[in-house]
Amino acid sequence: MDLRPVLQVVGILLLTLAIGMAVPMLVDLYYGNSDWKTFFLCILTTAFFGGALVLSNAGDNLAINPRQGFMMIALSWILLCVFAALPFWLSTIGLSFTDAIFESVSGLTTTGSTIMVGLEKTPPGILIWRAILQWLGGIGIILMALSVMPFLKVGGMQLFRTELSENEKALPRTAEFAKSIGWIYVVLTFVCAVAYHMTGMTVFDAFAHSLTTISTGGFSTYDTSFSHYDTPWTESVAITFMIVGGLPFILYLKAVRGNAAPLLHDAQVRWFFSILIASTFALFCVILWQTEFDSAHAILKSAFNATSIMTGTGYVSDDYQVWGGFAMNILFFLMVVGGCAGSTSCGIKIFRFQVLYAVTDIQIKKLMHPHGVFIPHYGNKPLPEGVPSAVMSFFFMYSLCFAGLAMALSFVGLDFLTAMSGAATAISNVGPGLGDIIGPTGTFQPLPDSAKWILSAGMILGRLEIFTILVMLSPNFWRR
Amino acid sequence: MDLRPVLQVVGILLLTLAIGMAVPMLVDLYYGNSDWKTFFLCILTTAFFGGALVLSNAGDNLAINPRQGFMMIALSWILLCVFAALPFWLSTIGLSFTDAIFESVSGLTTTGSTIMVGLEKTPPGILIWRAILQWLGGIGIILMALSVMPFLKVGGMQLFRTELSENEKALPRTAEFAKSIGWIYVVLTFVCAVAYHMTGMTVFDAFAHSLTTISTGGFSTYDTSFSHYDTPWTESVAITFMIVGGLPFILYLKAVRGNAAPLLHDAQVRWFFSILIASTFALFCVILWQTEFDSAHAILKSAFNATSIMTGTGYVSDDYQVWGGFAMNILFFLMVVGGCAGSTSCGIKIFRFQVLYAVTDIQIKKLMHPHGVFIPHYGNKPLPEGVPSAVMSFFFMYSLCFAGLAMALSFVGLDFLTAMSGAATAISNVGPGLGDIIGPTGTFQPLPDSAKWILSAGMILGRLEIFTILVMLSPNFWRR
Repeated sequence: MDLRPVLQVVGILLLTLAIGMAVPMLVDLYYGNSDWKTFFLCILTTAFFGGALVLSNAGDNLAINPRQGFMMIALSWILLCVFAALPFWLSTIGLSFTDAIFESVSGLTTTGSTIMVGLEKTPPGILIWRAILQWLGGIGIILMALSVMPFLKVGGMQLFRTELSENEKALPRTAEFAKSIGWIYVVLTFVCAVAYHMTGMTVFDAFAHSLTTISTGGFSTYDTSFSHYDTPWTESVAITFMIVGGLPFILYLKAVRGNAAPLLHDAQVRWFFSILIASTFALFCVILWQTEFDSAHAILKSAFNATSIMTGTGYVSDDYQVWGGFAMNILFFLMVVGGCAGSTSCGIKIFRFQVLYAVTDIQIKKLMHPHGVFIPHYGNKPLPEGVPSAVMSFFFMYSLCFAGLAMALSFVGLDFLTAMSGAATAISNVGPGLGDIIGPTGTFQPLPDSAKWILSAGMILGRLEIFTILVMLSPNFWRR
Repeated sequence: MDLRPVLQVVGILLLTLAIGMAVPMLVDLYYGNSDWKTFFLCILTTAFFGGALVLSNAGDNLAINPRQGFMMIALSWILLCVFAALPFWLSTIGLSFTDAIFESVSGLTTTGSTIMVGLEKTPPGILIWRAILQWLGGIGIILMALSVMPFLKVGGMQLFRTELSENEKALPRTAEFAKSIGWIYVVLTFVCAVAYHMTGMTVFDAFAHSLTTISTGGFSTYDTSFSHYDTPWTESVAITFMIVGGLPFILYLKAVRGNAAPLLHDAQVRWFFSILIASTFALFCVILWQTEFDSAHAILKSAFNATSIMTGTGYVSDDYQVWGGFAMNILFFLMVVGGCAGSTSCGIKIFRFQVLYAVTDIQIKKLMHPHGVFIPHYGNKPLPEGVPSAVMSFFFMYSLCFAGLAMALSFVGLDFLTAMSGAATAISNVGPGLGDIIGPTGTFQPLPDSAKWILSAGMILGRLEIFTILVMLSPNFWRR
């Protein structure tokens, strides 16, 4: 395998990460926090590695084959997570190596589970670094889902092949495309930050939260997350931009280019809203029934938490566990549903449920008419060959990996609820779990190191659509 | 739709049920319990209905089309459950209508969840009626899985088409076949009863337990289930015959006819034992680590409980919840795995995991070699067209129904653990769940009536391989 194009891309991404580190350095300089030196050191290290990889692997030909593609994705994410962990490990907050890696993985995968306690007293540089990580992870995921994943046909993503991913030599052509999507991402982040600021957040908090909202990441600058802000406006802004982060970004690009129709009529978007509204309504009824909140509060709380969990953001505005078993069950299953493909959210994703529904519908028809010929559709088009089995295999492996993670977590000593919800929240990149430890009012800090490593692996597995990692575990992959 | 052949079969099955009711009547007569009159009344009612259906729908042509097939299965199970509930409702134990239906459904579906407390003081007729129900349910399932299901292609069962189900007019020809399988079932039950008796059970208990062991049903004659017998021999007999009940009965038929090779080399049987041995070993380590048991006890306890849960029997010899979260997780996932197709056990079933594995393996190969052509195999043969998508749709609907049941159960007020494990144990026809209420030391008695109805629906849904019911819910089914 020719690793040069792979390492070159990894190098470029490391350089981008180094540029990202400049933000917390400047923030710490501005606030007079000594951690700016740590960030400076980390920039040097990361840039040196990235630059070396770029220079030593320079070449004209960026065309890659599938094996190189998988290698590129896995290697990028793992190396980026390691380098992104350096500031957590080396700065004055003094996290252990395990904790630093966990926080970094949770950041870049836009999960939002945290092992940090006392965020109010944490230096601003570290706080903004956590937010930047999620923001970079978010745009990385969108671009990956729009360019590399369809080409690699991971988990039925070939359904989203466009002119941009049609060509096997698409990689260089994505540059221009990436720029457009990138600008939309930047503008949306900016609008979100302004909106947050207008509802009363400080500039710093508005900036930090906008980065983690649009990326459906979920890191906050307060231990109490959104409970800290008890204004309906702040929560409304959060709901809006979490939804924005959970929809396919390609549709924004089309809308900007003058064609808003797909955004309004897209089947995936419609299913997303249907599920979200149904869950919100169910939670709304539960809240009205179980708590003392009035209708206005109930609708806000239910919409906020349903959106936060379904998009995989993981902001917390309430301890939803006091709403009882039904609310917990709704949120548990919402975790694994996830948002749309091509967004910053994770989970099984809406389009896969649409494909599974279409295939099951055909099954039922076939049972009644064994000699009939039926073809599953997505939107109004027949599903391309290979998509149904890719999606169904994905669903199976998702379930299997979930079970494996839950078993591994319970093996290292976690109770049933913590293990089950921990596995779900990790593989779906949500953030909080259920139970007293990792639930909405807790953190991942008290977990044993082994559990943190298992969860980190789970987050990366989920973020890379499982098959990217599975492929590399197959002995065939490494055979010449 | 011509309902005559459907109603005729339902009538025959009701007559069979009436004959089955003669056993508890004779038992109550022998023990001088007044409930024999109740049973006599129930026999008259059931036989009258069954006889009327047979006589009024007599005809030569037993060939059925798929829609009639689905109708026949669903109608049979539902009507049989209702008539089988009569003795529970009318006898001196005075169960409520809901409880009677729950116990009857749990019996016929070979689930083994119970709402009855104080079995030691329950009249012998009722005890034996519970056992007879599971025994009849068990043979019913085997015959259904070998004849009707492959013909209807439910959930990929066409994989088990034989000369017996090949023909669309196969129904009359199955009579002879049913007789052979039936004899094997009777002989195995008898051997099991003798073995139980030799380990110290009374004749009555040995008889009652053999009926619920071979059918992987799990009703006991004691509240404490197998904890009542603290002898390793009794548990060993139970383990042996639960396994016998969890393997494909067609292989016994082949073995009896002189060809034992399939029983030893069948892929499904091998996977079954691999999973069972791996789970037993994991539980064994947990028990050694968490309790004071010595190795011999630990191996017995782990094998007993793993077998009981995986085959969906549901006997309890220990409160496995004290073994900690890892053991609970293993048993939770073992519940949904289930036994082999063509056995008396339920769950997703081993062959479906084999098909899912084969399809996923192909997916991984395709990701690496997008232009390669790969065909999934089962055993050494290529999978027939339609089987992969049937199996994958089944897996998806199983997950969805599980989620739906768990949500419904939590909606009526059950806590997270009870709702999740209740849904799993019902749809997989296992028996006990997890938690304080429905766990190994509890019963389903304290649940609200609504939960009992939801669980009853779940048991039938799981037993009829989900799609039998789903098809009937489709509006197309009822269109002329």
